[in-house]
Amino acid sequence: MHASEFERYRQLRREFHRYPEPAWCEFHTTARLVEALEERDPDAIYVGREALASEKRTRVPDESVLEEWTERAREAGADESVLERTAGGHTGCIATFEFGDGPIVGLRVDIDALPVRESDDADHQPAADGFRSTNEGYMHACGHDGHMTIGLGAIDAVMEGDFDGTLIACFQPSEETVAGGEPMAASGRLDDVEYLFALHLGLDHPSGEVVCGIDEFLAVRHLRAEFQGETAHAGASPQQGRNAVQAMAAAVENLYAIPRHAEGKTRVNAGVVGGGTATNVIPEEAFLEGEVRGSTTELADYMYRKAERVVSSAAEMHGCEASMETTGGAPSAESDPELAEVVGEVARAVDGVTAIRDRDDLGGSEDATYLMRHVQERGGLACYVCVGTDHPGAHHSATFDLVEDDLRIAIEVLSGAIERVGRDGVRDVST
Amino acid sequence: MHASEFERYRQLRREFHRYPEPAWCEFHTTARLVEALEERDPDAIYVGREALASEKRTRVPDESVLEEWTERAREAGADESVLERTAGGHTGCIATFEFGDGPIVGLRVDIDALPVRESDDADHQPAADGFRSTNEGYMHACGHDGHMTIGLGAIDAVMEGDFDGTLIACFQPSEETVAGGEPMAASGRLDDVEYLFALHLGLDHPSGEVVCGIDEFLAVRHLRAEFQGETAHAGASPQQGRNAVQAMAAAVENLYAIPRHAEGKTRVNAGVVGGGTATNVIPEEAFLEGEVRGSTTELADYMYRKAERVVSSAAEMHGCEASMETTGGAPSAESDPELAEVVGEVARAVDGVTAIRDRDDLGGSEDATYLMRHVQERGGLACYVCVGTDHPGAHHSATFDLVEDDLRIAIEVLSGAIERVGRDGVRDVST
Amino acid sequence: MHASEFERYRQLRREFHRYPEPAWCEFHTTARLVEALEERDPDAIYVGREALASEKRTRVPDESVLEEWTERAREAGADESVLERTAGGHTGCIATFEFGDGPIVGLRVDIDALPVRESDDADHQPAADGFRSTNEGYMHACGHDGHMTIGLGAIDAVMEGDFDGTLIACFQPSEETVAGGEPMAASGRLDDVEYLFALHLGLDHPSGEVVCGIDEFLAVRHLRAEFQGETAHAGASPQQGRNAVQAMAAAVENLYAIPRHAEGKTRVNAGVVGGGTATNVIPEEAFLEGEVRGSTTELADYMYRKAERVVSSAAEMHGCEASMETTGGAPSAESDPELAEVVGEVARAVDGVTAIRDRDDLGGSEDATYLMRHVQERGGLACYVCVGTDHPGAHHSATFDLVEDDLRIAIEVLSGAIERVGRDGVRDVST
Amino acid sequence: MHASEFERYRQLRREFHRYPEPAWCEFHTTARLVEALEERDPDAIYVGREALASEKRTRVPDESVLEEWTERAREAGADESVLERTAGGHTGCIATFEFGDGPIVGLRVDIDALPVRESDDADHQPAADGFRSTNEGYMHACGHDGHMTIGLGAIDAVMEGDFDGTLIACFQPSEETVAGGEPMAASGRLDDVEYLFALHLGLDHPSGEVVCGIDEFLAVRHLRAEFQGETAHAGASPQQGRNAVQAMAAAVENLYAIPRHAEGKTRVNAGVVGGGTATNVIPEEAFLEGEVRGSTTELADYMYRKAERVVSSAAEMHGCEASMETTGGAPSAESDPELAEVVGEVARAVDGVTAIRDRDDLGGSEDATYLMRHVQERGGLACYVCVGTDHPGAHHSATFDLVEDDLRIAIEVLSGAIERVGRDGVRDVST
Repeated sequence: MHASEFERYRQLRREFHRYPEPAWCEFHTTARLVEALEERDPDAIYVGREALASEKRTRVPDESVLEEWTERAREAGADESVLERTAGGHTGCIATFEFGDGPIVGLRVDIDALPVRESDDADHQPAADGFRSTNEGYMHACGHDGHMTIGLGAIDAVMEGDFDGTLIACFQPSEETVAGGEPMAASGRLDDVEYLFALHLGLDHPSGEVVCGIDEFLAVRHLRAEFQGETAHAGASPQQGRNAVQAMAAAVENLYAIPRHAEGKTRVNAGVVGGGTATNVIPEEAFLEGEVRGSTTELADYMYRKAERVVSSAAEMHGCEASMETTGGAPSAESDPELAEVVGEVARAVDGVTAIRDRDDLGGSEDATYLMRHVQERGGLACYVCVGTDHPGAHHSATFDLVEDDLRIAIEVLSGAIERVGRDGVRDVST
Repeated sequence: MHASEFERYRQLRREFHRYPEPAWCEFHTTARLVEALEERDPDAIYVGREALASEKRTRVPDESVLEEWTERAREAGADESVLERTAGGHTGCIATFEFGDGPIVGLRVDIDALPVRESDDADHQPAADGFRSTNEGYMHACGHDGHMTIGLGAIDAVMEGDFDGTLIACFQPSEETVAGGEPMAASGRLDDVEYLFALHLGLDHPSGEVVCGIDEFLAVRHLRAEFQGETAHAGASPQQGRNAVQAMAAAVENLYAIPRHAEGKTRVNAGVVGGGTATNVIPEEAFLEGEVRGSTTELADYMYRKAERVVSSAAEMHGCEASMETTGGAPSAESDPELAEVVGEVARAVDGVTAIRDRDDLGGSEDATYLMRHVQERGGLACYVCVGTDHPGAHHSATFDLVEDDLRIAIEVLSGAIERVGRDGVRDVST
Repeated sequence: MHASEFERYRQLRREFHRYPEPAWCEFHTTARLVEALEERDPDAIYVGREALASEKRTRVPDESVLEEWTERAREAGADESVLERTAGGHTGCIATFEFGDGPIVGLRVDIDALPVRESDDADHQPAADGFRSTNEGYMHACGHDGHMTIGLGAIDAVMEGDFDGTLIACFQPSEETVAGGEPMAASGRLDDVEYLFALHLGLDHPSGEVVCGIDEFLAVRHLRAEFQGETAHAGASPQQGRNAVQAMAAAVENLYAIPRHAEGKTRVNAGVVGGGTATNVIPEEAFLEGEVRGSTTELADYMYRKAERVVSSAAEMHGCEASMETTGGAPSAESDPELAEVVGEVARAVDGVTAIRDRDDLGGSEDATYLMRHVQERGGLACYVCVGTDHPGAHHSATFDLVEDDLRIAIEVLSGAIERVGRDGVRDVST
Repeated sequence: MHASEFERYRQLRREFHRYPEPAWCEFHTTARLVEALEERDPDAIYVGREALASEKRTRVPDESVLEEWTERAREAGADESVLERTAGGHTGCIATFEFGDGPIVGLRVDIDALPVRESDDADHQPAADGFRSTNEGYMHACGHDGHMTIGLGAIDAVMEGDFDGTLIACFQPSEETVAGGEPMAASGRLDDVEYLFALHLGLDHPSGEVVCGIDEFLAVRHLRAEFQGETAHAGASPQQGRNAVQAMAAAVENLYAIPRHAEGKTRVNAGVVGGGTATNVIPEEAFLEGEVRGSTTELADYMYRKAERVVSSAAEMHGCEASMETTGGAPSAESDPELAEVVGEVARAVDGVTAIRDRDDLGGSEDATYLMRHVQERGGLACYVCVGTDHPGAHHSATFDLVEDDLRIAIEVLSGAIERVGRDGVRDVST
């Protein structure tokens, strides 16, 4: 890749970085992607409802939040026609590029950001170089700004190459809430995909390292618990209250104390909590939003059942009622080794790649697994590739950042793999 | 009181009830009071900054909240000139009526409402009779709608009587947050008051009962604790987080468990809590707003010191930092028995009064104590009167309500007592 | 009282102090009391079962504990015939002295000690003067050593005076566990008592002060909760356990956090807890012994019901079963003011008495209330007297001690009051 | 193996099962082992101090406990000379059998039992067949009764075979507390061992399955925390106490809630807790004995550091002091694949073996790792073999049991492997 071409991608990434939007609110981001895709003259472009099974969406924010982000996007110059197509939190898009009769290959990247306030330390490059988040309190702290750039770059590279199949590029919303994968998988747009690639930057792998196929996606279930008690005057009649905040606190303390499980990884987090209305009123209501995970669906279910027990008995302890519901999640999945082998072969020839690992655990969750399973269940192959990058802060932290040259590596690995399976398919590695 | 006159007060009370506003946001309420006072042609009327030592205010909401309530008041028809005078959360007013050279008598009522969602049960009279709160989520759940009505009614009654002193009627904001008493006491408007009456309806005393002088106001200190941890990906690297929500929950659990004290009443409440940003992020920040109380200032301080210890060690336990600050409070106070005796004598002659109690404990806190102490420290006398009313729900609960006829009793008792001290002063009861 | 006579009581008190025994294990103490009483030639002496309704006893230690203390008493020289009569934890005794046809007057003192390790600081007089506890881990930390001495001294004084009624002196066991009062009340020995005096030293009243009648004994209920879970290997299969210690800990945390009650004092304590068998085994069993109190029986019941809820939901939270039972308690009681007035009149003439208070709250619990109520329900009068003493450490602490000269004051006040009611009865103070 | 020979081992195992003794108290067990070993005419037999570096022992019970178990062993007929040699808790023994100039091969089995009350259900074979524990409250709930039997059986089999090296049979005490491995390793008796075998039955592997080399022993650290507060009367002055039980409970709740770690397994257990002295005394002292584990030493250390923080801040929260110390532990270790391969080859030929696995994780901890590392650091090879058995209850549970025929499999596999390395050594598998 020429330096000038790379510079284009660097600027594109910084533009995305400057404008992070949370799940189902990627209005400006989708508009910018549609603009970029249209420049590349796709055979079709599906936006919003056309790229999503709307009824499969979960954890969609309140209308007022959607409106606020829409308005903000509008003020930032988002195309009005895209805002119409994404109305009501129908973000994301899919573009198809037909080159010939060869195989149908999918590429999936994710586009949403996190509610993390970005560091303004001078050590943090986006702050130093002036492309820090302009949506204060939100941040591309997981590299999706890079992923979108790679998606567009891979389209460019494939267009310049000799691929003669169909490329379906999926820009999936709401990965951070694992809420966007299922509706996109159910949209029908990927039904004929033969080979699907998904990718992630970083994940504690250093610059120069490529992991050809990621395994052990943690199964995850989101949950929301609500505690209902009864108010009373905190000074005059504390005994008449039924304290929902006390119940919630007892639940938090004991959720983290659910026994570890010998059969694999488990996780639990009470990520957002709140409750009460005034200092002198015994709190009547409280809530807790969190998640449980496991290295298998069974382990995630074990955690979920335990969490239900903790929530209901914490409420009971303080005379409150509790309800708890799951608000989405994602299954586990496996990368197909045949496809990972192709990635490895391609990566070996890419400039800057210094280490290749066949497989590794993700350690987290991803709703790319919905798309992978959708393709795999129809007889296709799927592979989740990790391209390493030296990131100073951890994923989801305020100082997360990328080495921008690694975007080039990712573009070359992915476009190369797409071209290779288009030309040669895969070898059978099962024997 | 004629039935028609009473009907006027009943409608006035319902009008106030329909429009509850929280502390420092009583914009519409103040405007309505100013309108009502001006109808009564006072010698002076002090609004907002004129009735408050602005710098003594605590717990003033954010500018955006103030603006939202101002706008709401404007839309509901509040007088623009009053909105200007109350700008920035300078609510409440004081009116003076000079009748002659007699003593200066103060009357203090409070005007704010609570963040409680009012019941819409058919059993709840305001719901049944159509004067339920129109500011959803807020409610006059402590009778201040009645207090304002009584304040205006007492002015009317005094005007019709033969009182020849000066009446200073104080409509104090922000009692629920015990934030309005200190700035009003420091305004200078009460410096020359010789006799001060304050009042409360209900307090678990039945209709027909009058408590001449309330004692044992609980001393109270408000507090706000903030917990600062560190985010991390809840699935991929939970061990890298420092969990502020876990710290807050440990604090809540242990705050309520501060040892009871043998020397008197103590109270603690974690009234509003929150924390975290996303289900899959270890929470970096959490907060807790609450209060401690004691039947003496020493006991409130005991609770505060223990709360500090709980907060700091809960943070330490989870590797977080914590800060805690006090955000206001109120001292204790005593009703002067000489003045209470006057109230008792007057009440004995009021129609509908079936039981008279010399004294009782409040059991809660009140920043009327600032005004009472201010007057008492200058050689005046102060008395806090309770006029009973059968209230179906507890104070601060969603089904709190008044027996409206008791407004009449309160008006007659207070105006009678004002007239009596104007005419006769008090007897010396200390011997 | 002559110095030589006083010296005798001082030595007696020190002898009792040196040999503390816990509830239902006062074998040596009872033997020593029987010996002392027999020296005084009573008309009757009832030991053990003769002074107790055996079936009303609660919280009797295991047979092995009883045997251990019996054996220890035997080795310390306790009279074998008394050991026989107190077998199975039937400790304490009642002696009657008939002087004439006058009224029947009861005197009740308590005899048990506490499981507190006595201080061996040089500042602690019993340590400095060589009469520190010889039963390591147990201590007369509540003054019952003094109470027994006063009981014997009062008998001596009454014998020397002109009392012409009957004196029934009750040496009650197991006051600290509030387990001895009910069986002694139900023994029948106090059925005809017309005037009953009980007493306590100290209670934070200084030397020279006498409180004529104590009120507000806190009602108390003891409780024992057991948690049953399931063991598992803590390393290999933590998820298979149901952790009884975790359940107990959750219960402890939340027991102390039961809401305070506006109607009066409440107390809770998890006084003894334990659980588990080995570091590498998930604990299957745990227990919690504690108590709740209230300034009325209703408040104690409120606390008990809340405690039941906490225990059962803490168990449920960790998949355990819990059982909770009450193991005794004591009601509240009031001192009769007529009798207290007699005490006051007598005390006024006692050398060394510098302050007399009519009444005061106890602030704690006492099963003397069973005897008081027993007498009161039969038409008699009862009064609980407090004789102040400067005690360096708090009651129940390792440095509790008495000013020994105050024993004399107590002997003179009580014997004087017994003689006075024997001669003059009481005045009617109800009008 | 003939049925009659097997029957002998079956009876031996049941004899061991009937007499479980906890760590450092295996007095009777050691005596029985010495008797059995002497029947086999060893070249040397080292008992107690001769087989242990006494100063390396940890977690030795109090003298009174040691004496109680010694006395019990004496009454059950233990040989007096062995009781002398094991005095003070120096249990266990090592026997050496020299057959020729071949390699020195070690065999290590463990001998202690657990503080678990054995099931008396009719379904539990030891109860049904009359060999249930006679030391009530203690149980061979981890198969060490079988291990000892296998150790003796393997000696017999080697004696009957053509092994021409030296066999050093180690009967190690105190494995359950991971306290016996280090002192036995440091005894010097294993310094020249070239090949070391250790074994375990069960571990959730079914009858017929052999795992040739166990890996991933969890590193473990035991801990004991003590909480020191201050007593006070729970009714009269609760505010004067500093509650050690409350501190301990807060620690327990938060210990289990230490964040999981992405880099591997972690474990925590508060296995034994206790505190307080009386229901009406605020508890002054409490303790907590537990353990932390990790799949690496670093992870165990992570847990230990977090536990220290939890303990100290829980104490601080309730105004108490805390101390925490480690009371032993065990490192991780790896089985040498060369030696595991020998086990696999031998096992393949053993009757009843239906499945062979090269390696598996232990999932728990074992202080055999001290002996393995001792041998490996001196250039020898070590291998930890698991012989499966269908066990109805989990390890450490009240219904744990063995399939006795699997003892034969274990004897044949181990004696076969000893003979094989004696004859052929191992192949180099590193290339």
